[in-house]
Amino acid sequence: MQGQLCDSLRLYPDPNATELCQSLAKRAGLAVDQVFVGNGSDEVLAHTFQALLQHSEPLLFPDISYSFYPVYCGLYGIDKREVPLAEDLTINVNDYQGPNGGVILPNPNAPTGELLSLVAIGQLLTANPNRVVVIDEAYIDFGGQSATQLVPQFDNLLVVQTLSKSRSLAGLRVGFAFGQSHLIDALERVKNSFNSYPLSSEAQAGAVAAIEDEDYFQQTCQANIEQREQLAGQLKALGFSMTQSHANFLFVTHRSMEAAAIAAALRQQGIIVRHLTNSPRITNYLRISVGSASDCEMLVQALTELLSSS
Amino acid sequence: MQGQLCDSLRLYPDPNATELCQSLAKRAGLAVDQVFVGNGSDEVLAHTFQALLQHSEPLLFPDISYSFYPVYCGLYGIDKREVPLAEDLTINVNDYQGPNGGVILPNPNAPTGELLSLVAIGQLLTANPNRVVVIDEAYIDFGGQSATQLVPQFDNLLVVQTLSKSRSLAGLRVGFAFGQSHLIDALERVKNSFNSYPLSSEAQAGAVAAIEDEDYFQQTCQANIEQREQLAGQLKALGFSMTQSHANFLFVTHRSMEAAAIAAALRQQGIIVRHLTNSPRITNYLRISVGSASDCEMLVQALTELLSSS
Repeated sequence: MQGQLCDSLRLYPDPNATELCQSLAKRAGLAVDQVFVGNGSDEVLAHTFQALLQHSEPLLFPDISYSFYPVYCGLYGIDKREVPLAEDLTINVNDYQGPNGGVILPNPNAPTGELLSLVAIGQLLTANPNRVVVIDEAYIDFGGQSATQLVPQFDNLLVVQTLSKSRSLAGLRVGFAFGQSHLIDALERVKNSFNSYPLSSEAQAGAVAAIEDEDYFQQTCQANIEQREQLAGQLKALGFSMTQSHANFLFVTHRSMEAAAIAAALRQQGIIVRHLTNSPRITNYLRISVGSASDCEMLVQALTELLSSS
Repeated sequence: MQGQLCDSLRLYPDPNATELCQSLAKRAGLAVDQVFVGNGSDEVLAHTFQALLQHSEPLLFPDISYSFYPVYCGLYGIDKREVPLAEDLTINVNDYQGPNGGVILPNPNAPTGELLSLVAIGQLLTANPNRVVVIDEAYIDFGGQSATQLVPQFDNLLVVQTLSKSRSLAGLRVGFAFGQSHLIDALERVKNSFNSYPLSSEAQAGAVAAIEDEDYFQQTCQANIEQREQLAGQLKALGFSMTQSHANFLFVTHRSMEAAAIAAALRQQGIIVRHLTNSPRITNYLRISVGSASDCEMLVQALTELLSSS
């Protein structure tokens, strides 16, 4: 990226991000025409809604999920049906059947962190043969198995990923998708009618470097997973229970103290955890990002004091 | 920008690009809520079409103009009416009246480089009081007067600009728009339903630095203008005539040699000029970018040899 900060910034970037697509294809074991890139996975998702999910029948997604899905539906006038999570806040793929204009779900889901197996995703794809099924893998690298390996087998699968989580590059704005070439073509057509040059020269350079540094990537993911498991143990010892997160956050509820009160008390100490109130089933839960070792230590200490004094 | 290439790239950028909007507002003498920024002016234009130009009556724009306008109409299902340029390839604002769903035109126009005065733009705005009039000022800094100064006076004016031309930062992907706050609000609503973080941390830092370095900007614009005028004189001496360009390119036609033949011959020498064939009225014209002094010298030499041997 340092090398890109030069006189060549006066030139337009490669509109096709060729080198980046090649790096991504190679790592995923796919062809370069099975890769799409965009300005963050939100842009990739927006183009996906417009290019692949506009049908007369409703789009299906979990009722507790990424809050942007209903927003995209509003933007593009797409009908939706929000499918309730199971009692234990997991996704049951058998609930995603019947007439629909497509399915989208995050794996792992947010804010629960719950992971679907590739077998379950295969069932979902098989049950919806004439509709696009989008697996939004923003958090897949923290312990899940990517559905990219199913791409050659299923012509209705689109997998979306991002550099903003496991690659620690949220400031750079790079997202991408994998799917068979007819799906990627549709995304390219919309993209080329919207903005031919979504990725700056530095974003392309930084993304290539990130994808090619596999060692650093494995190391940071592993560190985050270990930190998550350690934090989970500490929170359980403090009386929290939680979903089984495979993401870079935990989704927790306390046996006696209310989530809203905990969030407010932590905020007073400069610690911000997410208290989501968009569904009555999760109002007593907190989404806690797995930070650095010292971040987690501060959190555990603050919670220990709070819960012992309450 | 060097300062942005650090550990903080793991964090999301400022979704509102606050510092950049403040710099742009200050320079334009407008309020910060009268500024919108996006990932290149193409993204700003795309949001503009979706947010402000979707009406039952057709959008008006010149028949010879930026080739992306009809593409956006296709993407968002907007009806269009392409208004012919006058005989001399200029825009007559009196042709942009009657029922319409909005007006968009580049000033200076591309590929002609012809400039409208602020008086003419004021007439256009007055003649279309209930529709948004978008002035696309990608090339305004090469000798035109920006319509941004009309923003306080006209509630139907949106002015779009870019860092890709006069700021020499096409590789960075930054565009912006100025208008009264109700228009900017509409753009923000669409943007926040599409992608909350369109500008990377470095793009924001680079754009702020570019906007604040007024001296460098004036110097590069002036150099381009002088180079353009010198090249225009040399091409006239070689038998070319041309529109009156106020952009960083010339739009020329030769008295005896056909444009297609000239373009093909130059290409063989590694010199690329644009031969546009999308309208029969301009098939004998070439759009020639004003390059560096040595680029222009090479071009003039190649043309001198070509025309003397033909």
